[in-house]
Amino acid sequence: MATGKKYVYSFGGGKADGNESMKNLLGGKGANLAEMAGHKDLKLPVPPGFTLTTEVCTCFLANKRSYPKSLEKEVEKALAQVEKLMCRKFGDSENPLLVSVRSGARKSMPGMMETVLNVGTTEKTIPGLIKQAGGNARFVYDAYRRLIMMYSDVVMEKAGGIEPAEDMGIRKQLERIMDKMKKEKGYASDTDLKENDLKLLCGQFKVKIKEVLGKEFPDDPMKQLWGGISAVFSSWNGKRAIAYRKIEGIPDDWGTAVNVQTMVFGNLGNNSATGVAFSRNPGNGENGFYGEYLINAQGEDVVAGIRTPSPINQYSQSENNKGLTTLEQGMPAIYKELVSFRNRLEKHYRDMQDIEFTIEKGRLFMLQCRIGKRNGPAAVRMAVDMAKEKLCTKEEAVMRVTPDQLNELLHPVIDPKLELGAKVLAKGLPAGPGGATGQIVFTSNDAVEWKKQNKKVILVREETNPEDIEGMRAAEAILTARGGMTSHAALVARGWGKCCIVGCSAMHVDLGGKTIKIADKVFKEGDWVTLNGTKGNVYEGKLVMMDAGAENQMLNDFLKMCDGIRKLGIRTNADTPEDAAKARQFGAEGIGLFRTEHMFYGKGSDEALFLLRKMIISKDVTERIKALNELFPFVKKDIKGTLEAMDGFPVVIRLLDPPLHEFVPHEKAKQEELAKELGINAEEFAKRAEDLHESNPMMGHRGVRLGITYPEVSEMQIRAVLESAAELIQAGKKPFPEIMIPVVCDVKELQDQLVIAKKVYLEVLAKYNIKKIHYLFGTMIEIPRAAFVADELATVAEFFSFGTNDMTQMGFGFSRDDIGSFLPEYLKKGILPEDPFQSIDQKGVGEIIKLGIQKGRSANKKLEVGICGEHGGEARSVEFCHKVGMDYVSCSPFRVPIARLAAAQAVLKEKPVKKAKK
Amino acid sequence: MATGKKYVYSFGGGKADGNESMKNLLGGKGANLAEMAGHKDLKLPVPPGFTLTTEVCTCFLANKRSYPKSLEKEVEKALAQVEKLMCRKFGDSENPLLVSVRSGARKSMPGMMETVLNVGTTEKTIPGLIKQAGGNARFVYDAYRRLIMMYSDVVMEKAGGIEPAEDMGIRKQLERIMDKMKKEKGYASDTDLKENDLKLLCGQFKVKIKEVLGKEFPDDPMKQLWGGISAVFSSWNGKRAIAYRKIEGIPDDWGTAVNVQTMVFGNLGNNSATGVAFSRNPGNGENGFYGEYLINAQGEDVVAGIRTPSPINQYSQSENNKGLTTLEQGMPAIYKELVSFRNRLEKHYRDMQDIEFTIEKGRLFMLQCRIGKRNGPAAVRMAVDMAKEKLCTKEEAVMRVTPDQLNELLHPVIDPKLELGAKVLAKGLPAGPGGATGQIVFTSNDAVEWKKQNKKVILVREETNPEDIEGMRAAEAILTARGGMTSHAALVARGWGKCCIVGCSAMHVDLGGKTIKIADKVFKEGDWVTLNGTKGNVYEGKLVMMDAGAENQMLNDFLKMCDGIRKLGIRTNADTPEDAAKARQFGAEGIGLFRTEHMFYGKGSDEALFLLRKMIISKDVTERIKALNELFPFVKKDIKGTLEAMDGFPVVIRLLDPPLHEFVPHEKAKQEELAKELGINAEEFAKRAEDLHESNPMMGHRGVRLGITYPEVSEMQIRAVLESAAELIQAGKKPFPEIMIPVVCDVKELQDQLVIAKKVYLEVLAKYNIKKIHYLFGTMIEIPRAAFVADELATVAEFFSFGTNDMTQMGFGFSRDDIGSFLPEYLKKGILPEDPFQSIDQKGVGEIIKLGIQKGRSANKKLEVGICGEHGGEARSVEFCHKVGMDYVSCSPFRVPIARLAAAQAVLKEKPVKKAKK
Repeated sequence: MATGKKYVYSFGGGKADGNESMKNLLGGKGANLAEMAGHKDLKLPVPPGFTLTTEVCTCFLANKRSYPKSLEKEVEKALAQVEKLMCRKFGDSENPLLVSVRSGARKSMPGMMETVLNVGTTEKTIPGLIKQAGGNARFVYDAYRRLIMMYSDVVMEKAGGIEPAEDMGIRKQLERIMDKMKKEKGYASDTDLKENDLKLLCGQFKVKIKEVLGKEFPDDPMKQLWGGISAVFSSWNGKRAIAYRKIEGIPDDWGTAVNVQTMVFGNLGNNSATGVAFSRNPGNGENGFYGEYLINAQGEDVVAGIRTPSPINQYSQSENNKGLTTLEQGMPAIYKELVSFRNRLEKHYRDMQDIEFTIEKGRLFMLQCRIGKRNGPAAVRMAVDMAKEKLCTKEEAVMRVTPDQLNELLHPVIDPKLELGAKVLAKGLPAGPGGATGQIVFTSNDAVEWKKQNKKVILVREETNPEDIEGMRAAEAILTARGGMTSHAALVARGWGKCCIVGCSAMHVDLGGKTIKIADKVFKEGDWVTLNGTKGNVYEGKLVMMDAGAENQMLNDFLKMCDGIRKLGIRTNADTPEDAAKARQFGAEGIGLFRTEHMFYGKGSDEALFLLRKMIISKDVTERIKALNELFPFVKKDIKGTLEAMDGFPVVIRLLDPPLHEFVPHEKAKQEELAKELGINAEEFAKRAEDLHESNPMMGHRGVRLGITYPEVSEMQIRAVLESAAELIQAGKKPFPEIMIPVVCDVKELQDQLVIAKKVYLEVLAKYNIKKIHYLFGTMIEIPRAAFVADELATVAEFFSFGTNDMTQMGFGFSRDDIGSFLPEYLKKGILPEDPFQSIDQKGVGEIIKLGIQKGRSANKKLEVGICGEHGGEARSVEFCHKVGMDYVSCSPFRVPIARLAAAQAVLKEKPVKKAKK
Repeated sequence: MATGKKYVYSFGGGKADGNESMKNLLGGKGANLAEMAGHKDLKLPVPPGFTLTTEVCTCFLANKRSYPKSLEKEVEKALAQVEKLMCRKFGDSENPLLVSVRSGARKSMPGMMETVLNVGTTEKTIPGLIKQAGGNARFVYDAYRRLIMMYSDVVMEKAGGIEPAEDMGIRKQLERIMDKMKKEKGYASDTDLKENDLKLLCGQFKVKIKEVLGKEFPDDPMKQLWGGISAVFSSWNGKRAIAYRKIEGIPDDWGTAVNVQTMVFGNLGNNSATGVAFSRNPGNGENGFYGEYLINAQGEDVVAGIRTPSPINQYSQSENNKGLTTLEQGMPAIYKELVSFRNRLEKHYRDMQDIEFTIEKGRLFMLQCRIGKRNGPAAVRMAVDMAKEKLCTKEEAVMRVTPDQLNELLHPVIDPKLELGAKVLAKGLPAGPGGATGQIVFTSNDAVEWKKQNKKVILVREETNPEDIEGMRAAEAILTARGGMTSHAALVARGWGKCCIVGCSAMHVDLGGKTIKIADKVFKEGDWVTLNGTKGNVYEGKLVMMDAGAENQMLNDFLKMCDGIRKLGIRTNADTPEDAAKARQFGAEGIGLFRTEHMFYGKGSDEALFLLRKMIISKDVTERIKALNELFPFVKKDIKGTLEAMDGFPVVIRLLDPPLHEFVPHEKAKQEELAKELGINAEEFAKRAEDLHESNPMMGHRGVRLGITYPEVSEMQIRAVLESAAELIQAGKKPFPEIMIPVVCDVKELQDQLVIAKKVYLEVLAKYNIKKIHYLFGTMIEIPRAAFVADELATVAEFFSFGTNDMTQMGFGFSRDDIGSFLPEYLKKGILPEDPFQSIDQKGVGEIIKLGIQKGRSANKKLEVGICGEHGGEARSVEFCHKVGMDYVSCSPFRVPIARLAAAQAVLKEKPVKKAKK
């Protein structure tokens, strides 16, 4: 142990040894107390005290619970300083000092470590304390009683390493004594206990402690103090604290500081009070001072919620408390002082502050200040306002809103107060964010019909397929028993910004009986359920929604700040002119993924889908080309409309990707219609459909493999793209199509398809008599091998777009539709930190991506690189894409704002953020 | 063009400018002619001539068909030298010289380029030629006729760049003239044409040539010579040659040499002859001089097969030719000379020689010598014999047998002579090598029943599943319409060394009607078909098989030479004690893959399979553990037996790998039996089975994912392994089990399973009261992500085994069961050079493997690395495994010999092979 080191930092009386910047050494609480007490701009009335550093903790725990030699002297010196400031003396019988002993780590670990209050209360100091309390002996004995209970539990038992049998902990045993007394005396509550009762209890407690723990309760102030300090340090290695650190990723070797601070009491009469306030409204972000307080109470009483707290001012009034006296009315001078403190603190910290204060006999003490938590709308508003007020820089403002907070602004949510009290029926994967409530229906048709009757419905399915599209659109939300985060239901719902929960495996669906069973509860058609698609929670009954407030000026202002910072381009995944237009509103700068197949899933797709199916079931190239020719105008119409909606911006159009079998109709009627059209019988139809069946369709005949075996399919699509572009050019528009080949694993596949593209290009130029169409030819990188041969691919491809859904599937060998059977267990056991379909697995899949980019750029300096998997809208994944040097990310329209924010934050995380000058 | 370079190399008369080592410059043929003519140990009577180098060719083709300046002079000089040696003069009317002009590339490209014979035959030289031919004018006019036809075709038309309409080529037109004359005169054959007929024809030909090609046939020897040379050089870029080079991977810039050589004639009477001989028997490798000859004939007559050639000696006599006079009898002096040449050549080249010779009026000329081709048994015998004779080193001997040749020794094959004439009905993937013939049956039961009646059957299925196992075993071979090289049928068949063709998509199976249809042909149950599983060919009817000759001393001797060289260990994939014992015979040094699940596929597996199914269909952990306990003795029995059979060698035991749904019975009766056992109804059974169903089972709930969600399944298997080992140790054996976890993608999966293993290990030690079981704990590397995190995996795993089947599936995104729909097209279009499931894709999958090894070894120097995919028995893949530094390969028992050879060759390919001293 180094000597000469300073282990104890004092604060109080307008001075402090430490300051805010010393969080690592003093912990968050200690650093902020020092800052409030000592900084020249603040010098707030903080109850004096001192902080034992985190270094003491690590030293203590590493050296068999022994302290640095110099510590005792330093503590004595600091204590003397407090005594001097308070004009009281620790252990004195006349005018004694009481202190609290609290933990305080670098990062807040609320409730995970121990606290000992009222340290210094002994038989000897009680008379002096009664005097200080204006003769309120009951108050003093109650404090003593609390100390004994807390101390015997925290210091003597827990820190002493004693592990009692269940229900036999010392605290429990003491509580039983107290309960017995209350029962005998017929008291309803602790507050009914009289001075003498408490006196008696304290005696009984001491006897019991000796009996159970074999040691006396130390009626000595210094013993209490050191006992408390050791107990708090020890609690760093308590079970709860260790578990919490593991979850939060807090290193074990950080250690905690210990804060020893003068006790102040808000419960010493009607000129005493305690309260909590926020320098701005944490619920909506308005620049109003917002808080609550309780006369004659301690902080724990506010938390306990027995009495309704009063508003500190008119601004803080609500339906619940509007009749109560405000602090402004009741103690105008103190309120004024508090307001000035609030102003100083906010100016100093340049962010909204969460303040705890206590008024002891007319004197205001500041107990704590910290950056205040806030909800999404408040976070955005404060960021925009404070940047305007120059309280912070734009960079700081952008860093103060989390992607989750932004998400709150984009979807309706369940009223948080109602959700708090609701019981979770079942959990599934949170596939589409936001909340929704409705009556359950089991078929797509029912969803459409009920919607027509103005009913709100939740569509419940085992899993969805393209035939459910109409019902999915009509429903408020979709709930499926199977499928993963990128299953059909999840993809479609997210594309629409619709609430959706998938893979809810606890739910058993009986489609025939139109019921679902969860645990032993049965729900039938028409029953109400409510979904939280952000969390994946299913609730029974109808909960009220809060609106998103879509068109939000504040949001737009905020996102513009983000745009000024980010380097990544933000595109969207959109498959229709309508989605493209919507995405433009959200700020998308092009389309990163237009899926030709999705035009067969959407509204009014019946005829196109029929023709596609006809093509698929075609026996030979002649039949197929005939069907393709009929299909051509439909494909072209959607492509042209989308290029037009994105005029001037690039549009990546991916050629047909899924295995054809996916489109074979399941319904008998549709099968018969198709068979009739093709002039074949049911048997022949079944045979052709069976021929398309695959064991593992995800790794089967799809993507470019279709384009190679059926070149005419690629040709039709490429022609649709280039003819659309040609017609738009003639109409004076600026289309920028990018033709993307999916599922590529070798450069020869690209070469094969490029030959088709070049041929069609020349034919289209000739047909429309134009000289040039600006277009790119590129590839998805979604097969692991593609990353390894990316240098070769980049000799042909002008752009790469990483398909991280499939790359995650192949990289992990996880079929996204089948992970429901094991991924929950993987997450529960901590084998994987999270679902890799939600956030890019940087360790594995991320390395594949890096390899692909590095190899691709090595061969083609001008290569455009983007991502079009669902990860493109997930914040950490966006940061990753920025770091590895992609040109853009692409995500569903509703995720575009989040991507804009995440892209800006990714830039800001690369170096210290510029701060506003004070 | 550099000057001063030598472009023409002469040979003949006991001298030569070049030698054998100059193949790149002189081509194979030219270098060998020079060697035969000029080497001091040989000095054989080669008709004198000269070679124009390959540099002339590349120069000619790169410079608009113009030659280096110095060439003409060099050719004239070389020609003069030939004239001197032959005492004849090119173009002379008295004693003219005739030459042939032939191609000769570095690597033989048989028939792909042009040849012009009889160059120098003109109206002027004819009288002198007739004199040389002893007055045989017909012979000379026939040679003239041939020259004109050949020259007009090859030189004037083809090399002239003329592309005639179909059937209007000059050769065709001249043939029509000749046919017309034969018809008019009533001749049956060309040989009926008389001197005058031929004279007339030559005239008519010249007229026709002028008419069709617009140019005169050059009746000038030097024009003929240069025309011939240019035509041969030009033919390097002919369509056939280009296509051949593409297939064989011969670079386009190599170019061909041109050999101009004195014509000698074996058809100048009964003291003339021509023949072909091998210095040893190419059919079985015996050290006997083996050859055939024809009196009064040219080489093309031997090829044409009109006359039956005579044996050169008694040793070469066969049923067909035993009545004919041998060369030894007919021309004893010449035979003796030939034998001495044979001896000199074999000693010089230190390998079996393929010799062409011509006897012109009692004088023996050597026209060609080259390393002789041989079949598998001959290759092995010659390698062993020649190494013993010190004709070559062991290293050379090992390099002289190809893996395909070795394979011939391991399986029965269709009699090659019969196969040559048989028509290929359909082609499929060559899944199990060797040949088989039998009557087709359609069910496993029928296969078993027919086999009992001593019938040979071929089991035909759409695709096989575990329930077909008994039938597959009973059948001579298996033929499926679907599936890839690693489908169930393919894997099982290869494991047994059984002939198998899968993915025969041209075949339509009607199981109900018990017929198959190929094109328009229908085969019914009981019809005979014959399969060549090495090529994937299906033939109609019954072809005779040739036996493999399994226990082969020569083979063992050869493989021992391989063992002395190779560095890779060779293990086998075996799942039963019987297979393990068989693999030991083949030389396996342990088991690289024992699949626990395969014990449920094999013979007599009924009860075990039933219990497995019971476990799978179990609803909860209690039911499952009960089933596992019943299953335990079965699993343990197979494991123990296998460890015992491999006593002293390592045995890698892989825990349960496939998705459970694979084991759910398809047959209704079995389903009912199982439901009854579990006490559930059909509906509940269907529900449980349905719950196991997956969209992409290959990427679903399998491998370690089962072990994580059902730890009790891993525990049972690990216990079976360790208890088996403990019992064997007690019996004085040396078991070395290696427990392998499949489908791993993260180190935490391994950690999870290791905890189970350690717990069971301690329990087993205690139960058997032993101190230590030598075992390893390791992982498959078969998921791409595993390679990227291999450094972490290697901190837990003591060994890696690359599962290249799955790695190929995930790396390419190719489901091995579904590639039939596109891979054939990929191979046809050259998009992939070969099926990556057959030979490791070194460019992609190989890079993943390298990454895995490098990362793994970086973290764990002692890491044992092997491969257990089917690639482990494929020669190029074995070489790759050697190169990347694996410790061993593992393959099915029947591939072990091939792996031993390939591993030795991999070592020898790393540096020049040590040659025997002459």
